[in-house]
Amino acid sequence: MKNLKLSVLSHTQNKRTVIRVGDVRLGEEFVIIAGPCAVENEEQTLETARQVKAAGARMLRGGAFKPRTSPYSFQGLGRDGLKILARAREETGLPIVTEIMDTRHISLVSEYADVLQVGSRNMQNFTLLKEVGRSDKPVLLKRGMNATLAEWLNCAEYVLSEGNPRVILCERGIRTFETYTRNTLDLSIIPAVKEVSHLPVIVDPSHGTGRSTLIERMSLAAVASGADGLMIEVHQTPHKALSDRYQQISPDAFSLLVRKINRMKSAMDDIYRDES
Amino acid sequence: MKNLKLSVLSHTQNKRTVIRVGDVRLGEEFVIIAGPCAVENEEQTLETARQVKAAGARMLRGGAFKPRTSPYSFQGLGRDGLKILARAREETGLPIVTEIMDTRHISLVSEYADVLQVGSRNMQNFTLLKEVGRSDKPVLLKRGMNATLAEWLNCAEYVLSEGNPRVILCERGIRTFETYTRNTLDLSIIPAVKEVSHLPVIVDPSHGTGRSTLIERMSLAAVASGADGLMIEVHQTPHKALSDRYQQISPDAFSLLVRKINRMKSAMDDIYRDES
Amino acid sequence: MKNLKLSVLSHTQNKRTVIRVGDVRLGEEFVIIAGPCAVENEEQTLETARQVKAAGARMLRGGAFKPRTSPYSFQGLGRDGLKILARAREETGLPIVTEIMDTRHISLVSEYADVLQVGSRNMQNFTLLKEVGRSDKPVLLKRGMNATLAEWLNCAEYVLSEGNPRVILCERGIRTFETYTRNTLDLSIIPAVKEVSHLPVIVDPSHGTGRSTLIERMSLAAVASGADGLMIEVHQTPHKALSDRYQQISPDAFSLLVRKINRMKSAMDDIYRDES
Amino acid sequence: MKNLKLSVLSHTQNKRTVIRVGDVRLGEEFVIIAGPCAVENEEQTLETARQVKAAGARMLRGGAFKPRTSPYSFQGLGRDGLKILARAREETGLPIVTEIMDTRHISLVSEYADVLQVGSRNMQNFTLLKEVGRSDKPVLLKRGMNATLAEWLNCAEYVLSEGNPRVILCERGIRTFETYTRNTLDLSIIPAVKEVSHLPVIVDPSHGTGRSTLIERMSLAAVASGADGLMIEVHQTPHKALSDRYQQISPDAFSLLVRKINRMKSAMDDIYRDES
Repeated sequence: MKNLKLSVLSHTQNKRTVIRVGDVRLGEEFVIIAGPCAVENEEQTLETARQVKAAGARMLRGGAFKPRTSPYSFQGLGRDGLKILARAREETGLPIVTEIMDTRHISLVSEYADVLQVGSRNMQNFTLLKEVGRSDKPVLLKRGMNATLAEWLNCAEYVLSEGNPRVILCERGIRTFETYTRNTLDLSIIPAVKEVSHLPVIVDPSHGTGRSTLIERMSLAAVASGADGLMIEVHQTPHKALSDRYQQISPDAFSLLVRKINRMKSAMDDIYRDES
Repeated sequence: MKNLKLSVLSHTQNKRTVIRVGDVRLGEEFVIIAGPCAVENEEQTLETARQVKAAGARMLRGGAFKPRTSPYSFQGLGRDGLKILARAREETGLPIVTEIMDTRHISLVSEYADVLQVGSRNMQNFTLLKEVGRSDKPVLLKRGMNATLAEWLNCAEYVLSEGNPRVILCERGIRTFETYTRNTLDLSIIPAVKEVSHLPVIVDPSHGTGRSTLIERMSLAAVASGADGLMIEVHQTPHKALSDRYQQISPDAFSLLVRKINRMKSAMDDIYRDES
Repeated sequence: MKNLKLSVLSHTQNKRTVIRVGDVRLGEEFVIIAGPCAVENEEQTLETARQVKAAGARMLRGGAFKPRTSPYSFQGLGRDGLKILARAREETGLPIVTEIMDTRHISLVSEYADVLQVGSRNMQNFTLLKEVGRSDKPVLLKRGMNATLAEWLNCAEYVLSEGNPRVILCERGIRTFETYTRNTLDLSIIPAVKEVSHLPVIVDPSHGTGRSTLIERMSLAAVASGADGLMIEVHQTPHKALSDRYQQISPDAFSLLVRKINRMKSAMDDIYRDES
Repeated sequence: MKNLKLSVLSHTQNKRTVIRVGDVRLGEEFVIIAGPCAVENEEQTLETARQVKAAGARMLRGGAFKPRTSPYSFQGLGRDGLKILARAREETGLPIVTEIMDTRHISLVSEYADVLQVGSRNMQNFTLLKEVGRSDKPVLLKRGMNATLAEWLNCAEYVLSEGNPRVILCERGIRTFETYTRNTLDLSIIPAVKEVSHLPVIVDPSHGTGRSTLIERMSLAAVASGADGLMIEVHQTPHKALSDRYQQISPDAFSLLVRKINRMKSAMDDIYRDES
């Protein structure tokens, strides 16, 4: 555990955790999750799902419950959004990753989702962490906006200690003084996580940068840093999105991006072939 | 609203909000809230309640549900803690302020508490905010560790927009690079809140500094900055406390502190008498 | 020294340092320093000097060399600015505090200034610190924008270790995520400095908040926190100032403020009379 | 210039700046700079120079004047250090990058150095920036510990506006709340710089992470992010280094690393071949 102070860390074990979701084996194979920030309507969601699948995405993301800074912003479609996601899975076979914000929604969201996402603002919502720790669904745990590695892993520990061993960590940018980007994507946390935890860790360059023009380079850099996957926001018409319009990319741009990511992944495999 | 961007701010109104809790009129009179970080047992809590009341505290604070970084730290006594707080109220007449962390606990906590506290880590737990917004209890909303004023007021707006007009803001220190203190108490936010909101705002110098030796000066400075009250952690034997042992002060120290605070409050009243 | 790690701290001594500048005894009496952000012309400077003296200021501040983010912003009048400051001292008797940015200017600035100011951006300009450490003028050392207490005191140590014992520390706000204020004035650093150092420490609420409307409350709170003085920007017509126009106050506002500060200082003396 | 506010930005031009230093063409070819944190003695420096050259480094770095937090830490060998660096250049042909901290040292350092480095703590030492702006040597400008992109580019502008067009930007980690790493290496700034400036930008993963175990991954990620080069600290016996002992790597480790970096660079060339 090097110099990281964790009072107890049950997740120190010898081999890396691999998380199976459908035929996806996150932690063993590199996994791209894609989809719109928010589920806005059925047509948008299904069309995006088809396109990101065709491009190479292995899971579909989409928010039905949206944590918004203002109570007057679009809050998501709720249960209707979950149903749309389920239809998208039915059609494409892509497992669904969606955010859960309320302990009372566990059974509702679990009916439709394959992976329960806990967002940055809820990273230290310990009640929610304990509840998803009693679920049989994998949990995608985003790093808080100003969380240290030790705090983040302690939050994973809340889930693990309740009996759910399937936690996927997700770096999504931390708050810094920089204003050019929405957040500062901290790729150095990827090899740091690998040093002290057996859990898989992915990168969200969409929230991490908040600028669509920076996503390609940061996706490639995330692969090079050793991430187990990427989560990327894709929208039919980004400039008309109901949320996060500056950071979503079009299905076509996503398709080109996946090709580059795959080539980068091959290069990394070559570089590390001799070592493994 | 000056240069603060809030899409809608229902809490802009002409007169300052006064929040009545028992015979306390927070926002009109200066109010000191005191008590242990956590309710550890009945004897400790009752004795502390008696002593802080004798010293001049107007409300009793104490945690029954504790948000802790590690799942293996003391998590609070839960319902038993709430019952102990209720007995302390019965004996001393002091209204109870206690933290709520779970939407499912609203009715449980409301049975015992007079003010529902939403902690820093839950400031953007929007689900919880909406739920306490439907309660008939006043809400003490702590500022998040890296929250801007606009974000904090938007969280208050979540409560207000659900119909609960009784929100007390509480500055409790923000995270900075300083390591000498646990947090950095931001007193400049007090006059800033007064410029843009009608809600009362108090200061928690215990969490704000994390060092018992700094509490006196920061309490006096909080009064001078225009705060409507203070929330101070008091423990029978701080060095034996189950949490926050470096920032709690003894009942005797608290008693001396209240006298200084009262003299500071008088001085401020004198300074501003001519203006009002 | 509590938990503050300083490899060697020559400035731990038994009694507090008092710094004499003319008839001012900073560290023993509460001292207000005032004047324009930048020396813009002779008339403005002399008139401001007269007015802040009449209001109760004990030293005059004014920048001749200005550190500006952009090379195309007004950079100060240089030597001409220093000469204007000297004339203001001649007329009012107020000692001069002015910033030095260049090691090659030591003898030039020392001809005119009574106190050499090292600005925030140069806090860790170790070359400059060593040079002013060899000067016979007192040094006003501003805290860096993201400096910890330990780093700041180590910078003071650079001056002290070269033989100049006369260092005045100045808190001027640190950079945080808050955007409502220009910086976040950290008043908790005042009692912290008092715990670990014998050096006097003053507060600059003008840069510390960047908003003229917050200066009064933060000045009073600074007195309550235990500061040894205040440095306040005053300009004839703040909205026409060549720099810092949102944070400078008029001579009339300054005059009213000084009266409140004096009443606060009396109140603090009363509160602490019995203890000393 | 997108949403980056710079009052005037003379360095917006159509083609990317290429900086020639000896036979190195930084900005056109990928360049690795390596060497010890500090020049400790002749033998160490010469041996390291030979080894990093053999491994593929194109320039030699080494500090003769060291900016240290404490005045009692090793401050560098000064002029003797510069002479040792010159001998290393003589023997290996590697151009020298070394830090300058004092405006009065311009001619001294320029006698020996090929590139003048301005360190993080001096990023806003405007006097020094103007002085190196009048020099005929290229300037390696490190990003300040809490500098925004706009502030950093404005500092480059200070150099450019004095007539020196040869500025190399260097990301070296920013200060965040993370304690596992020394700093947080911000790779997203690399594509951001490319969007708004024609200047080359390199990455220093040694200071950027402060942990030797993270340097490999962050070097590869830096290449993937689009950096024009890397600056890496190499020491004969890192654990005995007089400064930065946790972040320096051995010549052998460096040699292996360069091979991986080269393979990554080839992969990136392949990925982007079709686009250029």
